[in-house]
Amino acid sequence: MPVVRVLLIEGYGAQVRRRLGQALTDAVRLVIDAPKDAVIVATEEVAPENYMRGGETRQPGRAVADPVEAVQTFLGLMSARDLAGAQACLAPGAEMVFPGGRRFTALADMVAWGATRYAQIDKSFEGFDVSMGAAGPVVSCRGTLSGVWTDGTPFSGIRFTDRFELTAEGLISGQEVWNDLGEARAPA
Amino acid sequence: MPVVRVLLIEGYGAQVRRRLGQALTDAVRLVIDAPKDAVIVATEEVAPENYMRGGETRQPGRAVADPVEAVQTFLGLMSARDLAGAQACLAPGAEMVFPGGRRFTALADMVAWGATRYAQIDKSFEGFDVSMGAAGPVVSCRGTLSGVWTDGTPFSGIRFTDRFELTAEGLISGQEVWNDLGEARAPA
Amino acid sequence: MPVVRVLLIEGYGAQVRRRLGQALTDAVRLVIDAPKDAVIVATEEVAPENYMRGGETRQPGRAVADPVEAVQTFLGLMSARDLAGAQACLAPGAEMVFPGGRRFTALADMVAWGATRYAQIDKSFEGFDVSMGAAGPVVSCRGTLSGVWTDGTPFSGIRFTDRFELTAEGLISGQEVWNDLGEARAPA
Amino acid sequence: MPVVRVLLIEGYGAQVRRRLGQALTDAVRLVIDAPKDAVIVATEEVAPENYMRGGETRQPGRAVADPVEAVQTFLGLMSARDLAGAQACLAPGAEMVFPGGRRFTALADMVAWGATRYAQIDKSFEGFDVSMGAAGPVVSCRGTLSGVWTDGTPFSGIRFTDRFELTAEGLISGQEVWNDLGEARAPA
Amino acid sequence: MPVVRVLLIEGYGAQVRRRLGQALTDAVRLVIDAPKDAVIVATEEVAPENYMRGGETRQPGRAVADPVEAVQTFLGLMSARDLAGAQACLAPGAEMVFPGGRRFTALADMVAWGATRYAQIDKSFEGFDVSMGAAGPVVSCRGTLSGVWTDGTPFSGIRFTDRFELTAEGLISGQEVWNDLGEARAPA
Amino acid sequence: MPVVRVLLIEGYGAQVRRRLGQALTDAVRLVIDAPKDAVIVATEEVAPENYMRGGETRQPGRAVADPVEAVQTFLGLMSARDLAGAQACLAPGAEMVFPGGRRFTALADMVAWGATRYAQIDKSFEGFDVSMGAAGPVVSCRGTLSGVWTDGTPFSGIRFTDRFELTAEGLISGQEVWNDLGEARAPA
Repeated sequence: MPVVRVLLIEGYGAQVRRRLGQALTDAVRLVIDAPKDAVIVATEEVAPENYMRGGETRQPGRAVADPVEAVQTFLGLMSARDLAGAQACLAPGAEMVFPGGRRFTALADMVAWGATRYAQIDKSFEGFDVSMGAAGPVVSCRGTLSGVWTDGTPFSGIRFTDRFELTAEGLISGQEVWNDLGEARAPA
Repeated sequence: MPVVRVLLIEGYGAQVRRRLGQALTDAVRLVIDAPKDAVIVATEEVAPENYMRGGETRQPGRAVADPVEAVQTFLGLMSARDLAGAQACLAPGAEMVFPGGRRFTALADMVAWGATRYAQIDKSFEGFDVSMGAAGPVVSCRGTLSGVWTDGTPFSGIRFTDRFELTAEGLISGQEVWNDLGEARAPA
Repeated sequence: MPVVRVLLIEGYGAQVRRRLGQALTDAVRLVIDAPKDAVIVATEEVAPENYMRGGETRQPGRAVADPVEAVQTFLGLMSARDLAGAQACLAPGAEMVFPGGRRFTALADMVAWGATRYAQIDKSFEGFDVSMGAAGPVVSCRGTLSGVWTDGTPFSGIRFTDRFELTAEGLISGQEVWNDLGEARAPA
Repeated sequence: MPVVRVLLIEGYGAQVRRRLGQALTDAVRLVIDAPKDAVIVATEEVAPENYMRGGETRQPGRAVADPVEAVQTFLGLMSARDLAGAQACLAPGAEMVFPGGRRFTALADMVAWGATRYAQIDKSFEGFDVSMGAAGPVVSCRGTLSGVWTDGTPFSGIRFTDRFELTAEGLISGQEVWNDLGEARAPA
Repeated sequence: MPVVRVLLIEGYGAQVRRRLGQALTDAVRLVIDAPKDAVIVATEEVAPENYMRGGETRQPGRAVADPVEAVQTFLGLMSARDLAGAQACLAPGAEMVFPGGRRFTALADMVAWGATRYAQIDKSFEGFDVSMGAAGPVVSCRGTLSGVWTDGTPFSGIRFTDRFELTAEGLISGQEVWNDLGEARAPA
Repeated sequence: MPVVRVLLIEGYGAQVRRRLGQALTDAVRLVIDAPKDAVIVATEEVAPENYMRGGETRQPGRAVADPVEAVQTFLGLMSARDLAGAQACLAPGAEMVFPGGRRFTALADMVAWGATRYAQIDKSFEGFDVSMGAAGPVVSCRGTLSGVWTDGTPFSGIRFTDRFELTAEGLISGQEVWNDLGEARAPA
């Protein structure tokens, strides 16, 4: 029954502390085979004046933007075809890699390419995985695609997965997309 | 500069404690935007006789098998076409979902199906993501495939990603595979 | 000089935390032969949002009713012969065992029996012992009885002890009474 | 789910630390209405050279002798009529108070007085309560007496309770006895 | 990267807690060769009702007056020749030892003696060292003297050091003065 | 009654931990007016594999050489006129400042100058103050000088104080000397 205590400088919002507690709980459960209810995480906060490093009091650092929320916002804007809004979710230099290894840096280019493959497309989500990468949070989502081929035929239930790399600010610095459209589409 | 302390009953191996420290470090970094070197994790161990729950001393729980190691073992056995060995890595009832939504429970069936798509295949890995799912660890790996089509033509650099769900014992309870073979293969 | 720290979810009243500190102090002194002033107990409180078990924030549990207070209330009501009030202090099924092994579940029966032994009775208290039993708090009080025998003769200084078992809600689930009335009373 | 941590100087035996953990668990449960299994107590030990008070390293204090064990030893010696052994369990000046308020300091006197009441007596125990008094541990035991009256009539099932005050060394500094012999014995 | 935690009863001002954090940081750095920024000190405060020693809640103790501030106040009053004010900075029985081993208890005597050595004198400070002596804080300051000899010749850059012993209340209980005036002054 | 806990990576010798405990005790007493015996310092050690910063286990840092010991060694070698040994105690570029503001970097130069002032000199010590400076430990010692003037006249009881700045390795990076020789010596 592992007990985790984390010491923070006062100043993080309750939602951030909740995310931290959940992330620490998950971290323990990745390694110790305890029932979920057996993992205790307590967050201790001390006032900035009560936290000193190098003999100087410190302010709390910045929270990392919730990576799942950031991805969902981006996906929502894409689904609403608000390309300007979605582009603003991307970090400078962000690259998107799509099936067949096609690479885009501008969402407009990616959308133009998509138009050669389907007339309409919608994503339905089954789940999100979140982990910490070397450079920042990584979010993978998966689910199924439905839509209409360019020839007017509808399709649905086609599996996909997207992998996003994010910055601490919640910008998307990279996206990789895999799906079964190539398996499913009518041969040319 | 968050400081995390985790209290364990003595008895976990050094490698388990190292994995725990790294998982807790990653957990903090998913939420607090601190430089990596600014996250301190200390593991405190007390002898079983010094840990009491409900007035009774306790023994340390079981460690969760290293999920990346478990996936790598499985992938190595598959690559060596040791189907019996690989099948032993699967939890009872494990299902594998392959491009086009093909579902298998027996590796032999999956291999037979693959033989209709390529004569030979090899995976090269770019990275692994690990997270905690509702039922156990989740590992996603990604990289590229190379091999030979059934018509003898070679291929390479074809993107793939595999998502594994694991049990605490390190058995694979589910695998989902996405790749660009459908984009790349010669039309029938 | 043992130092005890107890972590609580914020929400317990100051009186409860004081009782907890004293109980922990006594617990240490039952085992470690330290001068009373050498036992330090610090109660650390974290906000409910800073305490997570199983990845979910929790609310503080209920405090156990002060068992000595509960017993004193009951004894006060008995002394005032407020049988209805005193009966409300008893848990359902509570049994009282009196000298000679007489057992009662209704206070009225017990009082009726007492009337065959004395015309009037008062308790004067010397002390209370409190411990934790298997099912809940246990309070023992002791002191002397004074009063008037049924023949009008007064008596005083007759030793007694009462042992109460209580529920967490502070209801009395059992009472056992011993005293020297049988040694002292005029033979029939 | 209170978490208690107690810091000790290394040197107490496992049995003492177990008693301490149980006493702290009971202390929490006297005040916080948590299920027994929800109370965690961890004992942290530091080497004497790692514990400093007033700038000087310290040695662990003495453990308090297990008070229940001390009482059981005394009662066993009394039951075996090893008066010398039992007397050695008493602190200097210890007083025993028996039914009717009879006071003894020498066990031989007490036994002589008992011989006027019964020819033989045995105790059967139902339970022990332990608490911390102002001057040291307090143990109350209760149960029933069986034996033979001076006239040869047997008796059994007669309730008793004994209250012992002890020193840190485990010597008995006071005993008070209540029982129903006065209720039960044949009138003179 | 040592992490220090200090538990205080709530009630010390922010400035006192800052001094404490700095003193603890310095203490670590006197012994562990860590970069200054690698020493973390967290001050945990519990409400008086959450701190119990010997089963009784306690109030925070008094803070020690800032010894450097106390010395600077004294030196400022001396520099302003406010002898009454400066005398009030001295603990009863305080002794001042000046070059040549001259000892004074009254500032007026000391000033009278000084007048035989120089017509005017000013101190310029290079630094203060603070340490804890057996009886209280010790402050040493050093720097240079400038002024005018009794014969009207000016002087400057003459090294001095003063060592002050202080009480917890910030009164000066002793001063020792060394300087190079004896090296520098014109021979008689 | 402040309680200080310091977390260290296992590996520092007992003497280093003792020095750390004393330094932390002194640090508390510089700020909190507690009786010396009321300051508790506990050093918690975790194995290197249980201490992680930035997701990597760490080794304990180097201890700072005991600064008083380093100064005493230097002073002993000087007293024995082992100039080579004493010079080895000095950090590169170390400067010594003597009464009258005379500055030396080579001990031989300093000794040659001293020979113009006295034929023989000995130090007797009254105490050492230790504090942490900006660049490293600072040690001040004080006491009295005795010896023989160049004209053969003996002297004694002449006050002195030396201030040493040290490196973490225990080398002396600067010395400043004040004494009353200038007050005491026979005029030229």
